[in-house]
Amino acid sequence: MLMSPTLPADTGLTLMQRLDEIAQFSEGGPGVTRRPFTEEHRRANKMITAWMQRAGLEVHIDAAGTLVGRKAAAPGAKTLLIGSHQDTIRQGGRYDGIFGIALPILVLESLRERTLPYAVEVLAFADEEGVRFPTALMGPRALAGTFDSANLLKTDKDGVSLAAALSGFGGDPDGIAAARRDPDDLLGYLEMHIEQGPVLESLGLPVGIVTAICGIERWTVELTGQAAHAGTTPMDLRRDAFAGAAEAALEVESYCRATDGLVGIVASVSLLPNVPNAIPGQATFSIELRASEDSIREAAGAVISDAVETISARRGLECRLTRTYAQNAVPCDPGLRGALARSLIQSGCCPHRLMSGATHDASAMADLCPVAMLFTRCRDGLSHHPDEAITAEDAQASAECLAGFLQTLDPD
Amino acid sequence: MLMSPTLPADTGLTLMQRLDEIAQFSEGGPGVTRRPFTEEHRRANKMITAWMQRAGLEVHIDAAGTLVGRKAAAPGAKTLLIGSHQDTIRQGGRYDGIFGIALPILVLESLRERTLPYAVEVLAFADEEGVRFPTALMGPRALAGTFDSANLLKTDKDGVSLAAALSGFGGDPDGIAAARRDPDDLLGYLEMHIEQGPVLESLGLPVGIVTAICGIERWTVELTGQAAHAGTTPMDLRRDAFAGAAEAALEVESYCRATDGLVGIVASVSLLPNVPNAIPGQATFSIELRASEDSIREAAGAVISDAVETISARRGLECRLTRTYAQNAVPCDPGLRGALARSLIQSGCCPHRLMSGATHDASAMADLCPVAMLFTRCRDGLSHHPDEAITAEDAQASAECLAGFLQTLDPD
Repeated sequence: MLMSPTLPADTGLTLMQRLDEIAQFSEGGPGVTRRPFTEEHRRANKMITAWMQRAGLEVHIDAAGTLVGRKAAAPGAKTLLIGSHQDTIRQGGRYDGIFGIALPILVLESLRERTLPYAVEVLAFADEEGVRFPTALMGPRALAGTFDSANLLKTDKDGVSLAAALSGFGGDPDGIAAARRDPDDLLGYLEMHIEQGPVLESLGLPVGIVTAICGIERWTVELTGQAAHAGTTPMDLRRDAFAGAAEAALEVESYCRATDGLVGIVASVSLLPNVPNAIPGQATFSIELRASEDSIREAAGAVISDAVETISARRGLECRLTRTYAQNAVPCDPGLRGALARSLIQSGCCPHRLMSGATHDASAMADLCPVAMLFTRCRDGLSHHPDEAITAEDAQASAECLAGFLQTLDPD
Repeated sequence: MLMSPTLPADTGLTLMQRLDEIAQFSEGGPGVTRRPFTEEHRRANKMITAWMQRAGLEVHIDAAGTLVGRKAAAPGAKTLLIGSHQDTIRQGGRYDGIFGIALPILVLESLRERTLPYAVEVLAFADEEGVRFPTALMGPRALAGTFDSANLLKTDKDGVSLAAALSGFGGDPDGIAAARRDPDDLLGYLEMHIEQGPVLESLGLPVGIVTAICGIERWTVELTGQAAHAGTTPMDLRRDAFAGAAEAALEVESYCRATDGLVGIVASVSLLPNVPNAIPGQATFSIELRASEDSIREAAGAVISDAVETISARRGLECRLTRTYAQNAVPCDPGLRGALARSLIQSGCCPHRLMSGATHDASAMADLCPVAMLFTRCRDGLSHHPDEAITAEDAQASAECLAGFLQTLDPD
């Protein structure tokens, strides 16, 4: 251990003030709306740049439009990347994304005079939410070398291409391929983010260490029965597609409740004809499953799809099941997780582990280097909403965890 | 018993030809579209009038636009009413309604030379489906004295009032009140109709005697949980409004399956936000219950609404239950039912009894006099559809049942 974290006691408060201040760069309406490569993004970057400079970081924009602030180290030292995204959804909150940029800069400001045995780069990615263009995660994908340049031709609703928007912002569409980083130069990538869920609040903990970014699979199920008059068709002669869907939804719920590390839901349903007095002839619904371990998710997909087929057969329904999407889990790096846990224990915090149910920049960064995430408790599990909230105390705890992490991390 | 039915063996075939012929008076498109007080209705009435005259009936249009064909009897004799509606839904079939007009006329044609101990009137009601005006059943309501004259001001989509349409058709808006019949002059009202459900087909029977036109109640249920990210919210911290709705739907199904004389369904559902990756924060759905006995339906409403509240409470959902509609059952007259049963037994048919799950002109006629209905098997339980179908054999069996009924009915 190098030394104990020594952050000012008002670091959390200062962070909250900075997050309030940068929230003004919004398109208007409730909450924060900041899309990539807009005037609001430009003004936000100007403020982030000022924070970075105050922390003694060297600042530049990379080819993919990521604002980078670098704390140098001895020649030949590896680099730790820390970042998140500056953008928001429409009418989002003031913490999702930007928290993970403002916090490490402020911590590095406190450590400005200290030399670390590795370089640190804070990355302010332009676009994680994918609200403006029908693509997202260009920043981390450029670093990982997984960016598909065909995306540059995609346009926003005004017909502006991603390439044009990026060029106008100081990025370099032609230089994206060269922006790829060498994994051998990197210690890893750490992302600090609000939890966007209720777990930490329910446990009374300020922060938690992410075990993995969950894998996801989605199914579309189409059940076909027989639409008929709900008054003239006796119960035993019905082929009610919605009754089948209802049974399937409860099956998904009970299977997931009984399985650790798995969540799942039937959350989207449409019926035909969907009137009170006609037996539903068709029910189309989604099944979504998420798990920190792919084997758990895949077993769930197999068992649940079998169960839906059994339910359908028993009810005389035709069943068409299609797995429309599958994305593997991204496990967080044990070494980086261990450093986070040591830092928490050192400051008397419980190093609680939890899954990330949402995807993050870290999902794409995992193609480049080891990743880790620290979650900060948010109020009511609420995110993607103007009322998204955290406390200054939890911001302080998160900053102290990072300061401790930076000082315990072993670069070798 | 007066005498055995003596219908020509090709009565069913003739009836099918007549129904095919009158189906031509349609607005076009698939199936039959014949709205009240239109050119199609006028042409259909001309054809019905010709059938009535061939059967020796005296024909007139009453104040409410009902085409009436009367077979007279000795002075002071009571009158049996037999009828149904000439109109169809848009793109309906060629049997719903018109079958119950064409059939009795054809049977009376066979009995033309015979004197019955009561008069018979065949009623071709103008409007049962309510497709043109936002009201229906004017014909039977006028006879029962239950027609609300405020309906005369209602307009169709072209702005034509019901009063104007009726006047232009030979009806008399000002004379509707006087069209009310004296129940003491009537033996009752018989309606012959296709079943519009699959019961008779499933039993292999050509016809069935209706016990009652079911009572109906409808509920709207609004369950409110908490919309949240489906990945970040653990199973045990969810308040999933759709899972509550699914459980409620299966409860409705199992209660109705276990209760004779009751059907019920959750057939209309809408969710918010209704996307695959967000826990549904709100689920709004309908519950419809129908029963031949009001006490059964009311008990079901009470038990099921209690169950929905219990489910909601267990799941931490807010529950708003509203009974939006309730209509009592219309029991069919035991005397008329008995005469139908005797007629069927006499011709070797099983007098199967079944509930009518749909409403009919008979529902409104029940305010005037005893009512009865005879259902005829239809293919696949299908109705309100261009493919609606019956067979000539079943038409023959239905006609024979009516002929036997007319000859066994005791007017005293």
